[in-house]
Amino acid sequence: MFVTVLLLLVALSAQGGHSEETEEAQRPGHVSVIIVGATGDLAKKYLWQGFFQLYVNQVSSGNTFFFHGGGLSPADKGTPVLFEALKAVSCSKDVSQERCAVLKDQFLRLSQYRQLKTLEDYQELAKHIEQQLQEEGMTEAGRLFYLSVPAFAYADIAEKINSSCRPTSGAWLRVVLEKPFGHDFRSAQLLASHLGNSLKDEEMYRIDHYLGKQVVSKILPFRIENREFLDPIWNKHYIERIEIVVKETLDVTGRIPFYDQYGVIRDVLQNHLTEIMTLLTMKLPKNVSSNEEVLQNKLQIFSSLLPLAKNQAVIGQYQAYKSEVQQELNKTKDHVSLTPTFAAVLAHIDETQYEGVPILLTSGKMLDERVGYARVLFKNDMFCLQKHNGIHCKPKQIVFYFGHGDLQYPAILVSKNLFKPTLIDGDWKEVTEHTDVSVLGLSVSDYYVQTPTEQREAYAELISHILAGRKNSFISTENLLASWSLWTPLLSSLASSFPRIYPGGVDNGGLLDVRLKGRDISYNSEVVIISPDQVGGTSANNYQVMQGKFRSADMVSAWAEELVERLAVDIQEAAEAAVRESGVFHLALSGGSTPLALFHRLVLHHFSFPWRDTHVWMVDERCVPLTELESNFHSMNEHLLQHVRIPYYNIHPMPVQLNQRLCVEEDRGALQYEKELSKWVNGSSFHFVLLGVGYDGHTASLFPGSKVNEHGERLVALTESPVKPHQRMSLTFNAINRAHRVALLVMGKGKHELITQLSRVKDNLDKYPVTGVKPDPGTLIWYIDYDALLG
Amino acid sequence: MFVTVLLLLVALSAQGGHSEETEEAQRPGHVSVIIVGATGDLAKKYLWQGFFQLYVNQVSSGNTFFFHGGGLSPADKGTPVLFEALKAVSCSKDVSQERCAVLKDQFLRLSQYRQLKTLEDYQELAKHIEQQLQEEGMTEAGRLFYLSVPAFAYADIAEKINSSCRPTSGAWLRVVLEKPFGHDFRSAQLLASHLGNSLKDEEMYRIDHYLGKQVVSKILPFRIENREFLDPIWNKHYIERIEIVVKETLDVTGRIPFYDQYGVIRDVLQNHLTEIMTLLTMKLPKNVSSNEEVLQNKLQIFSSLLPLAKNQAVIGQYQAYKSEVQQELNKTKDHVSLTPTFAAVLAHIDETQYEGVPILLTSGKMLDERVGYARVLFKNDMFCLQKHNGIHCKPKQIVFYFGHGDLQYPAILVSKNLFKPTLIDGDWKEVTEHTDVSVLGLSVSDYYVQTPTEQREAYAELISHILAGRKNSFISTENLLASWSLWTPLLSSLASSFPRIYPGGVDNGGLLDVRLKGRDISYNSEVVIISPDQVGGTSANNYQVMQGKFRSADMVSAWAEELVERLAVDIQEAAEAAVRESGVFHLALSGGSTPLALFHRLVLHHFSFPWRDTHVWMVDERCVPLTELESNFHSMNEHLLQHVRIPYYNIHPMPVQLNQRLCVEEDRGALQYEKELSKWVNGSSFHFVLLGVGYDGHTASLFPGSKVNEHGERLVALTESPVKPHQRMSLTFNAINRAHRVALLVMGKGKHELITQLSRVKDNLDKYPVTGVKPDPGTLIWYIDYDALLG
Repeated sequence: MFVTVLLLLVALSAQGGHSEETEEAQRPGHVSVIIVGATGDLAKKYLWQGFFQLYVNQVSSGNTFFFHGGGLSPADKGTPVLFEALKAVSCSKDVSQERCAVLKDQFLRLSQYRQLKTLEDYQELAKHIEQQLQEEGMTEAGRLFYLSVPAFAYADIAEKINSSCRPTSGAWLRVVLEKPFGHDFRSAQLLASHLGNSLKDEEMYRIDHYLGKQVVSKILPFRIENREFLDPIWNKHYIERIEIVVKETLDVTGRIPFYDQYGVIRDVLQNHLTEIMTLLTMKLPKNVSSNEEVLQNKLQIFSSLLPLAKNQAVIGQYQAYKSEVQQELNKTKDHVSLTPTFAAVLAHIDETQYEGVPILLTSGKMLDERVGYARVLFKNDMFCLQKHNGIHCKPKQIVFYFGHGDLQYPAILVSKNLFKPTLIDGDWKEVTEHTDVSVLGLSVSDYYVQTPTEQREAYAELISHILAGRKNSFISTENLLASWSLWTPLLSSLASSFPRIYPGGVDNGGLLDVRLKGRDISYNSEVVIISPDQVGGTSANNYQVMQGKFRSADMVSAWAEELVERLAVDIQEAAEAAVRESGVFHLALSGGSTPLALFHRLVLHHFSFPWRDTHVWMVDERCVPLTELESNFHSMNEHLLQHVRIPYYNIHPMPVQLNQRLCVEEDRGALQYEKELSKWVNGSSFHFVLLGVGYDGHTASLFPGSKVNEHGERLVALTESPVKPHQRMSLTFNAINRAHRVALLVMGKGKHELITQLSRVKDNLDKYPVTGVKPDPGTLIWYIDYDALLG
Repeated sequence: MFVTVLLLLVALSAQGGHSEETEEAQRPGHVSVIIVGATGDLAKKYLWQGFFQLYVNQVSSGNTFFFHGGGLSPADKGTPVLFEALKAVSCSKDVSQERCAVLKDQFLRLSQYRQLKTLEDYQELAKHIEQQLQEEGMTEAGRLFYLSVPAFAYADIAEKINSSCRPTSGAWLRVVLEKPFGHDFRSAQLLASHLGNSLKDEEMYRIDHYLGKQVVSKILPFRIENREFLDPIWNKHYIERIEIVVKETLDVTGRIPFYDQYGVIRDVLQNHLTEIMTLLTMKLPKNVSSNEEVLQNKLQIFSSLLPLAKNQAVIGQYQAYKSEVQQELNKTKDHVSLTPTFAAVLAHIDETQYEGVPILLTSGKMLDERVGYARVLFKNDMFCLQKHNGIHCKPKQIVFYFGHGDLQYPAILVSKNLFKPTLIDGDWKEVTEHTDVSVLGLSVSDYYVQTPTEQREAYAELISHILAGRKNSFISTENLLASWSLWTPLLSSLASSFPRIYPGGVDNGGLLDVRLKGRDISYNSEVVIISPDQVGGTSANNYQVMQGKFRSADMVSAWAEELVERLAVDIQEAAEAAVRESGVFHLALSGGSTPLALFHRLVLHHFSFPWRDTHVWMVDERCVPLTELESNFHSMNEHLLQHVRIPYYNIHPMPVQLNQRLCVEEDRGALQYEKELSKWVNGSSFHFVLLGVGYDGHTASLFPGSKVNEHGERLVALTESPVKPHQRMSLTFNAINRAHRVALLVMGKGKHELITQLSRVKDNLDKYPVTGVKPDPGTLIWYIDYDALLG
């Protein structure tokens, strides 16, 4: 009954030269394939066809097969349904009709329906396999379970497989799972840990069918084959941006109970588009078939991705979705679903190679066309002198075209002004005859185009990879969790956001076009809704920056954002004046969270700040190593210094750590800083000192009740804080009050009470150290936001 | 005889609100205009017309005028020539024929030819002016000398003016000069200093007639008026590049004796295009009419411009130029001129705001069209989801269009997908009716277009600015010298370069198209010349990297460039392995010039180097402040550290300066570094140590004859160098030989003799300290280039 043929290892490894795994994977013998959920939609549409193709390809491989179609129904009900599905499989074009009939017949005879519901069912299955093996005297190669069932059933089935269906005698066990693999990081982790109780990581094959798409599976090989051309240009200097786009025309009618729980980000971006992004950007592995190396390189990308927050995404929902939800979920007319059916997300990889390169991931339902592609657009590095110029001043791009759209077939397109790519392997061919089609702004004839000689379904591809044990085509647990940890914070932050409603199809017009602003993304067009109470009303924005007096010093007050803007402008002006006058600007900055907004403002908006002539000093420091999160310097470095072009020498952290210990009096760190200060800063008078004030009235690290006025002539001192870490190093009032200009920045409603008190009390250094800030002959300005001032 | 009218200051200051200068400048009274070279080409073509227009505009200003046309010929010869020129002047369209005839008649009567050759001539001129003033009882406002003569005559004429023609009684003296202002930095400086002997800087008006072009003079006002829109986008995040282009169709026949000395860079780029570049990029002045502020902001741009070297320029020469030179300069057929008639230069401003933004300056003779423009092209920050999209996905740009070309009139064009600009002032109008013309890739109807209501000649504009004392429209000495100091090094480096020969006109095709590669520029197309001896010959490039043994350690050898490439790859591999294994990579680097090529290689090509997990240590340091050029750390910072994303904490300079003194034993700096080392580096074993070797056989700062082996267990020591600065701090052999891997990099023919010796001698630490490098259990690899190895 079973076809037994000689082992042809050569033929198999020739498929792609994946020698590393194939040896173990291809120990020939008998393979039992068990599809759990064998009569479901996915199985009927793709899986049986995929396994039939596997069977056809393996007929002369030395392996023998038996296919078990498992389902919850009893055999008498399941069998006819299964055989309907089996009869629908078809051969590829190169197989003759007669041969096809023979193969289909054999396949049918090798396939059987089984009820797989209880543990006993699984035990019986195992017994049946053992019997078969014994009867026919076959060596077992492995058992392949394909779980085409809802995810909630995974853990239970995995447990049954583990307890009753493990092969003995060193044959492999592979269990294939279909997404969704969780709903967020926690649920994915939970599912992974449940599955981990029954299955080893190498036994799990999580399917992302995009990895089976022919073009996607060739991204890495293409990058490797063409590395000679790509290496010099695959970086921020050349890449303008990367777009990964999957547009669909369909809606989700009929799938709402599933879809409304997930939405487009979980359905497409978290998995398919993210995988493609890692393939496009990961460091090339030395050995493309090394699972470990590929995985590590992928994980490196995940760890370098900047976090995704609200500003990195826009979401939309097609208009009819609302009523579909009401209908399918039996909701009332006022039910609103916030589930997005469209999303565009802007990712950035924080590595030197890709710094600043926008990576746009976008997908949606009910759009104007069905198409999927990843496009790497290069910067325009040509200047064409003559008015009418040829191809080399047109866009330069590489397009991985997954299929559909105007081109209609999967292809890799390289614009001719870039380079002539190597043909990736024997299964691909160059397309030289072009119809008059335009792909992403260029005529097809302006590209070098290659396409697979034969188009294959993703599932058939992946099924053959499962048998070959090519784990790179599947999602490992680490990879999955890394992806969820990227997406979960974004999903949470969007949970209560209203998606923009779009009509669907070509009517969307420019409604979903997006604009990239630095690291942020936004819809290009504003949707303006004018409600009657908005017209002519006065809003908070009508407040202007106001100036006045506070504790007989000058005060500037405004809403937080304008206040910070004003302070940044004032600091820049002081910097420019100082640099004009003396060639250098000495700026002392406080720690804490209040100045962060200022730092961001300076980094993002003050491009002409004279950083090269600016020295940055610390107002105070906590006695912890500078490398720790708690360190004031650390936060200043994170938020300010590393983003501007300030020379290494102009940065002056406080020496809180000397001789491998923290703030020990004998190490004379304070004195050292004082000397550094005296050496660099003329008269030890900073041009600008930025201070904050604590809820308890402390400023710098000068705390109430700590005899802050007894530092005498000292400029820097060790001090004690009532809160941890207790030890501090701080500028003294002597140092602060020598400054040309001191700014006291106070923001937030939490400071309102203190501000009220401060407005009333006399100078009282012991109770309110901040009242000791009295620069002479310099000036003090309070910057107080409306929240702090007005409560 | 003289028209005397009431002072109408209002009318004058209304011209542009330049109140600051106008008050002084417009003290009304009598103005004597003296054109020296009054019958020359420039005077005939532009100057008399300009002064006539000035006269017409000033008729009712309260000023009176007399125009002296000076020349070398005696009066009887000069007078008729002058009057020919004077008769050719014309009125603007808004003046009636009758009124024009009256004005021309008055102007003719106010103008007179004078011989101006000897000092006596100038003395007589002065006497004449005084007489006139006295006779008519007029107050003198000022004297305006316009030197329309070759530059070599400037100093002499200035001297004569100074010694004999200065007005008394507080009236102003203004002397107008035409380019060239020197041939390079030295000659410009010399000329400036000669002129400085006779004239104050504020008395000199150096003309750059591009500054009188209507569009150019509105660049700053446009930027100021539209700062609300421009501020957020006028930086590296938004600007893709800036192009400043002046294309001419004419050749230089007839002007060769001048032109061949100068070429296109001196003729157009050094002055016109450079000025436009500063106007486009300078920080906006608070007060646009403050000469000092505008000048300072311009100078700031000059000081931030990266130096221009050979790689930042391509040059060309039109084919017929050679024979024109032979003819006009009476040269033989084998005479070759290297003077460029075309140049494209790539500038970069090294400021945070413009970092990485390419600024292309290009100009040439005999091109396909006559046109001039400055274009600010913005990055494509839109993603259009729908297949067919409108204006907002087209190029975003602002074009300052000087004139000619397809558009035919001067204009400022802002693409409609950017913003609707403010109309700059009353003299400009919006163009709303468009012919079907395309400007730089966009249809004119896709732009907001504004143009001057009346087109005015640059000279007429500038002449009115001279009278108004608007020095911003002229080139100050500081500005001039700053520009020459930018261009002179490039001109020197190109002095012996062969320009690419181009046929001229549309036949140039893509021959002069350029490609921008990072900071470099090159012609896009290669001109391939195959000479018989190049075919099949073996060239130096055929050498491969070779491996072998040197002093029984491994050796890698190659030509310098490949050697450095290989070393960089090896370091990166070591780094990745270390990071994989222990999460961190400790790298110790030597000073000196040899590693610079390596640093550049790492910066420019090794984007995926794991800098974030790399700690950089010093092999040795000179006892000088870290901020000095001589410091090893300084050079490492310049060439490596500041260009990569290495955290502040991972940088470990040697503490050569403690307690405000250098390398004093008692300050225990060496011990401090040793402790830092022990703390961070596991077992004090660096992962990689890069060493060089000196001509005398020293390595690190371990010098011959200095008992280098007596440091015992010490890891860091103070040492003595035979050359200055004598004091050093250095890793000891104990530290070096603990390393996992040590690379000894030796390059250059100068090291050949040493390498030969080293290949023969036994270990001799006293004579050849480098022979003490014997890592155990680590490995040593010599990287020796062919020059050092083979001589």
